[in-house]
Amino acid sequence: MFRFDSALVWLDLAGVFFFAVSGSLLAARKQFDIVGSLLLASIVSLGGGVIRDIIINAGPPVAFSNPAYLVPPLLATFLVYFLFSSVQRYTALLTLFDAGGLALFCITGTLKAISAGLNPVAAILLGVTTAVGGGLLRDITANEVPQLFNPRDLYAIPAFTGAALTTLLWSTGSFNAFTAFAVAFIVFSFRVLAWRRSWHVPLAVRGWQRLGLGNRGDGIG
Amino acid sequence: MFRFDSALVWLDLAGVFFFAVSGSLLAARKQFDIVGSLLLASIVSLGGGVIRDIIINAGPPVAFSNPAYLVPPLLATFLVYFLFSSVQRYTALLTLFDAGGLALFCITGTLKAISAGLNPVAAILLGVTTAVGGGLLRDITANEVPQLFNPRDLYAIPAFTGAALTTLLWSTGSFNAFTAFAVAFIVFSFRVLAWRRSWHVPLAVRGWQRLGLGNRGDGIG
Amino acid sequence: MFRFDSALVWLDLAGVFFFAVSGSLLAARKQFDIVGSLLLASIVSLGGGVIRDIIINAGPPVAFSNPAYLVPPLLATFLVYFLFSSVQRYTALLTLFDAGGLALFCITGTLKAISAGLNPVAAILLGVTTAVGGGLLRDITANEVPQLFNPRDLYAIPAFTGAALTTLLWSTGSFNAFTAFAVAFIVFSFRVLAWRRSWHVPLAVRGWQRLGLGNRGDGIG
Repeated sequence: MFRFDSALVWLDLAGVFFFAVSGSLLAARKQFDIVGSLLLASIVSLGGGVIRDIIINAGPPVAFSNPAYLVPPLLATFLVYFLFSSVQRYTALLTLFDAGGLALFCITGTLKAISAGLNPVAAILLGVTTAVGGGLLRDITANEVPQLFNPRDLYAIPAFTGAALTTLLWSTGSFNAFTAFAVAFIVFSFRVLAWRRSWHVPLAVRGWQRLGLGNRGDGIG
Repeated sequence: MFRFDSALVWLDLAGVFFFAVSGSLLAARKQFDIVGSLLLASIVSLGGGVIRDIIINAGPPVAFSNPAYLVPPLLATFLVYFLFSSVQRYTALLTLFDAGGLALFCITGTLKAISAGLNPVAAILLGVTTAVGGGLLRDITANEVPQLFNPRDLYAIPAFTGAALTTLLWSTGSFNAFTAFAVAFIVFSFRVLAWRRSWHVPLAVRGWQRLGLGNRGDGIG
Repeated sequence: MFRFDSALVWLDLAGVFFFAVSGSLLAARKQFDIVGSLLLASIVSLGGGVIRDIIINAGPPVAFSNPAYLVPPLLATFLVYFLFSSVQRYTALLTLFDAGGLALFCITGTLKAISAGLNPVAAILLGVTTAVGGGLLRDITANEVPQLFNPRDLYAIPAFTGAALTTLLWSTGSFNAFTAFAVAFIVFSFRVLAWRRSWHVPLAVRGWQRLGLGNRGDGIG
C-alpha cells in the first residue's frame, strides 16, 4: 500500500499555505482584524484536509496531530498584514493563491484516499471534496455565496480533472514527482484560464437559457 | 443486531434522489450552472447521511464507499436540466421533493443509528439530524436563512415524529415494510399539510406575541 | 491518563447550558419559532462538542451517547420562552451567556483533548475550536457574519488564553477545582471586558489603517 510520505506532506503543506493566503486576503477585504485573518486562513487551509481526514476516519486529522500544519496560516496572516497594501490586485491575487491550493489539494486528497484503501471513484470524490471544501468553508464562514457556484467561472471541473488524472496515473503505476508536477500545472492553468476567460458551462436549467435569463445571472451575490 | 440490509439501502437511495432534486431545483432558481447544480444536489442529498455516518463513527461514510450513491445526484441534475422549464411551480416542487427525502431519511437515519447500537434517544436524535441535516447544508451553502427556521411552517416536527415512530415500531418488533411505508406516508403528509396550511408553533419568546411582533415575522430573509 | 470524570461532565453541561441560552436568544431576536429556538440552542450548545468529539475520533459524540446533554437546550428554550420579554437587554444577555459558555468550553475541550492523548499544541487548538465552534455554527446557521470576526471585539483570544492556561496548569500538575474556577473567571472577565470596552487588535492589513479605512469597519454586516 502507498505511503503518504514526506514528499507528499510537503506538497500538502504548500497547498495549505496557498489556501491560507487566500483566506487572509478575503479577511483583509472584509476588514476583519488580524485574529480573524488567522482564523479564516486556518479554516480555509485546514478545513478541506480536516473534512478529508474525518471522512477517511483514521484517527485525529493531521492538522491537529502535526503542529507543522499551523505554520502556514500564521505565515500567511503575517505576510498579508505586512506586505499587502494595494486593494486593486486583490481579486487576482486571491484567485491565483486559491488556484495553487486547488491544484495541490486535488492531488494530495486523492492520494490520501487511495492510501486509506478507498476505491478509485471514492478517491476522486474525496480529492474533489478536499480541494473545494476549504474554499467552500471560507465563503460560508465569511457569509458569501460560494465562489464554487459562480456560473461565469469553472472551479470544480479543474479539481475533478486533477483528481481523475491522479487516480489514473496512480492505478497505471506512472505517478511520480514529474507527473505530479504536470497534473498540478494542468489544474492550476485550467483554473486560472477559466477565470481569466470566463469559461463556463450551461446553467442548471436548459429552459432559462432560451428565455434569456442566462445572461443576467443576477441570482448571484 | 439489525442489519441495514438491501431493502433499506434502496429506501435510503430513494431519499437521496428526492433531496438531490430539491438541491438541483434550488440551484436552478439561484441561476447556478450545471456543475453547481450537481454540487448542490450532492451536498443536500449526501450531506445528511455523511453527517450521520461520521457521528456513528464506523468507517468512511457510505456515500464515499458505495458508488451507487453518486447516481441520484447525477440523475437529478440531468432531469432538472432537461425537464424543468417552468418557474411557477418551483416552490411547490422543491417542497414536495424535500418532503419525500425528509420522510425517508428520518426512517433510514434512525434505523442506521439503532443498528450501530445507539440508545433509543440517540437514535431519534440522529434520525432527525439525518433528515434535516441535508436541507440545512443546502440552505447554508446557498447562503439563505434555512427553511428549517421558517416560523410559518413545520419542518423538524414531522422528522421527529417519523424518527420516534420508527424507534417505537422497532423496539416493539413491529417494524416491517408495511409499517415503514405507513411512517413515510405520515411524515410526508404531515410535512406537506404543514406547508400548505401554514401550520405553525409559537414563536421563541412568549412576550413578543403579546406585542404583536409575531405577525410581522420580518426577521426572516 | 486523565479521566474526563463527573466533575468535568458537570462543567461541560454548564457550558452547554450557557451556549444554549445564547442560541435561544438569537432565535428570539430573529423571530424563529419555538422549535427553531430549540434547534438553534442545540446547534450552538452541542455543535462545538460534537466537532471536538468527531476530531478526537473516539466513538459517537457524547451529545449523542449521553441523553443528559439534551436537557440544557430544552431548558434554555423553555426559559427564554417564558422569562424573556424585554428586547432591550438582548445583546448584553446574549454576550454574557456566550462568554460563560466560552469560559467553560475552552477548559473542557482542552482537557478532553489531553485525555484523548493529543499533544499540548493540538490540545490548545482543540480547546479553542470547541469554544468558538458552537458560536460559529450558530452565526453561520442563522445566516449572519460570525461574531468571531467582529474587528471591534475580542473573541478567540480569551478562548486561546483559557486553553493555554489549562494546558499549562495540567502539564505542571496544578490543575484542580480552584485553578479551573480561576481560569474560567479570567476568560469570562476578559471576554466581557473586551466587549464592554471594545478592545481590539489591528486589522488584517497594515496598509489600510494608514489609509483610514480601519475606522470605518463597514465591511462587516
